[in-house]
Amino acid sequence: MAGAVDTVQRVVLYTEDDPLHLECGRTLAPVEVAYATFGTLDADGGNAVFACHALTGDARVTGPGGWWKTLVGPGRPVDTDRFFVVCANLLGGCQGTTGPSSINPATGKPYHWDFPPLTIRDLVTVHRRLLEHLGIERLYAAIGGSLGGMQVLQWILDAPGQIQRAGIFAASAELTTQNIAFSAVARAAIRAGDPWAGMAVARRLGHITYLNEKSLQQRFGRKRREGAEALPANAADWLDTRFEIESYLDHQAETFLARFDPYSYLWLTRVMDDFTPLEDMDAVRRAMQAQPDLRTLVLSFNSDWRFGTAHSEFIAKRLREAGAKHLELVEVDAPYGHDAFLLESDEYHAHVRRFLAE
Amino acid sequence: MAGAVDTVQRVVLYTEDDPLHLECGRTLAPVEVAYATFGTLDADGGNAVFACHALTGDARVTGPGGWWKTLVGPGRPVDTDRFFVVCANLLGGCQGTTGPSSINPATGKPYHWDFPPLTIRDLVTVHRRLLEHLGIERLYAAIGGSLGGMQVLQWILDAPGQIQRAGIFAASAELTTQNIAFSAVARAAIRAGDPWAGMAVARRLGHITYLNEKSLQQRFGRKRREGAEALPANAADWLDTRFEIESYLDHQAETFLARFDPYSYLWLTRVMDDFTPLEDMDAVRRAMQAQPDLRTLVLSFNSDWRFGTAHSEFIAKRLREAGAKHLELVEVDAPYGHDAFLLESDEYHAHVRRFLAE
Repeated sequence: MAGAVDTVQRVVLYTEDDPLHLECGRTLAPVEVAYATFGTLDADGGNAVFACHALTGDARVTGPGGWWKTLVGPGRPVDTDRFFVVCANLLGGCQGTTGPSSINPATGKPYHWDFPPLTIRDLVTVHRRLLEHLGIERLYAAIGGSLGGMQVLQWILDAPGQIQRAGIFAASAELTTQNIAFSAVARAAIRAGDPWAGMAVARRLGHITYLNEKSLQQRFGRKRREGAEALPANAADWLDTRFEIESYLDHQAETFLARFDPYSYLWLTRVMDDFTPLEDMDAVRRAMQAQPDLRTLVLSFNSDWRFGTAHSEFIAKRLREAGAKHLELVEVDAPYGHDAFLLESDEYHAHVRRFLAE
Repeated sequence: MAGAVDTVQRVVLYTEDDPLHLECGRTLAPVEVAYATFGTLDADGGNAVFACHALTGDARVTGPGGWWKTLVGPGRPVDTDRFFVVCANLLGGCQGTTGPSSINPATGKPYHWDFPPLTIRDLVTVHRRLLEHLGIERLYAAIGGSLGGMQVLQWILDAPGQIQRAGIFAASAELTTQNIAFSAVARAAIRAGDPWAGMAVARRLGHITYLNEKSLQQRFGRKRREGAEALPANAADWLDTRFEIESYLDHQAETFLARFDPYSYLWLTRVMDDFTPLEDMDAVRRAMQAQPDLRTLVLSFNSDWRFGTAHSEFIAKRLREAGAKHLELVEVDAPYGHDAFLLESDEYHAHVRRFLAE
């Protein structure tokens, strides 16, 4: 049924007899993947679009509670009346795909520190195996924002020809020192004591980096919570949540704990730190020469100070140097910072709609 | 002896019979203050300069290990051969002045959550009492960076005429939403579990905001620690310190734990959040009219993204609107971010030297 919203499904893609071979040299099995599909696959399989989620996303890209339903859905730029959209939780995640808090069959307990190091290539390998399972050889498009865009970039390097249109939004091919530093603080918080308490700290920090300073200022300013205007005489009251921005961060931290896992946070931030897919330019050149028809949209938001336009420019420059022909670099004017890729924006949506129509 | 480096001294300035009256309505006693002086006070007491430290400073403004010895010392812009420099640890601090981890005489244990809320006005009140104790009526100058500059600003409003030259460097009269948000994350880290482990996280985060992104990039880039190039097979190795920037932040956190107290970190960040001394413009006008000869240098650094030039412009604009006549607003070109006020810079030092010579 066109536009139907499917539920999340799980499939075991690697077993003891056929384990996942990771870049670190280790193997992993079993590997289960949680995924959802939306819309109907054409008879010729030509309308499949893979949507790649960011650090904390999941397979529910659209439908009730879907994290990208502004962009993906019936009549939306990624139109589920026209496209068969696949979204899968990442390896290392905690939303149904095997990750560091999955049960280690050897011990009957969560892997945690026994879980292997991962790379974005490993994450892509698993999602490519899912495509095989679904019987899809080529993708009309793959799109993703932030870590999702980084997957799309790795994917066009690893499997030339499999993706016809690569949409890489608010992504990076090389984290800056400051990016790594923020990741390091988040991980230090998680490792300082109780991992959940630490993840609540990390999430607060994350939100600062996802939002633009000016838009934060406009939205919250120095507004205080009701009753928090006067200086209290008691330290606990004084140091508790008194500004609206504190209340916002508290809320974000609290709701996050209900749906995310601190070990996945450690693992998936680290894969981003390590990601430098455009370092080996010989390999990039080979990949670009093998897919001369690849269309690429590298898109950034002018208010993003996490993976801003300089990151996208670097990706575009290197891919063009390597021979990418049909590459468009676009900076969208939107005030919301890094989170803009998740939000409504006519300009952004028009670019995606046009890119998928070409 | 001119230029002599004195050791830190302690004096009890408030007692049970004469307690400190705080803005929150509570009293505090005893209040002890740790201070140091450098140079010799003129017979007429006309060469006293008060140096105000920032969040984590102490009374040792110069001499071996002094935190501002680039700016203060024999032959330096704040020349201890000419000036009698006083520096005192802040109320709420942990370097000898009474703070939240001082012993509560009522219980024989550290105050911690029983310690009262503070304001920057309270901090200034205590340092003014110290001046009384030292027999100094007027200051040739008071200077400070960051929280130190905020004290100087409060001081000229609270005691018109006591300061002849006010040097307010890299300071703020109104933290932005983002500033408060970073403070909130630091406090959340300290309150998440073990306060010391949390403060190590807070300090890492602090350093990101004190340093400019470009200078971080130039200094550390994506350099890895020796032996950390290859992807390890073990998660503990993988998630441990592998980038030079991580090593730098670890080191900053570790050395900080040896000299600072997490409760002081909570208290002194909160006083900054609350600080809005230029909100009541009638009071500011009265203060400016009462000291028509006051000279003010409001100085910022162009790479500072914590309390950058916009913060200084706001201070200058409001003080001028209130009638400040001899006010100079200067932006110094220095790459080091907020920390620039602590570091060598010919341009910065020339401004301070000239300001004190006028």
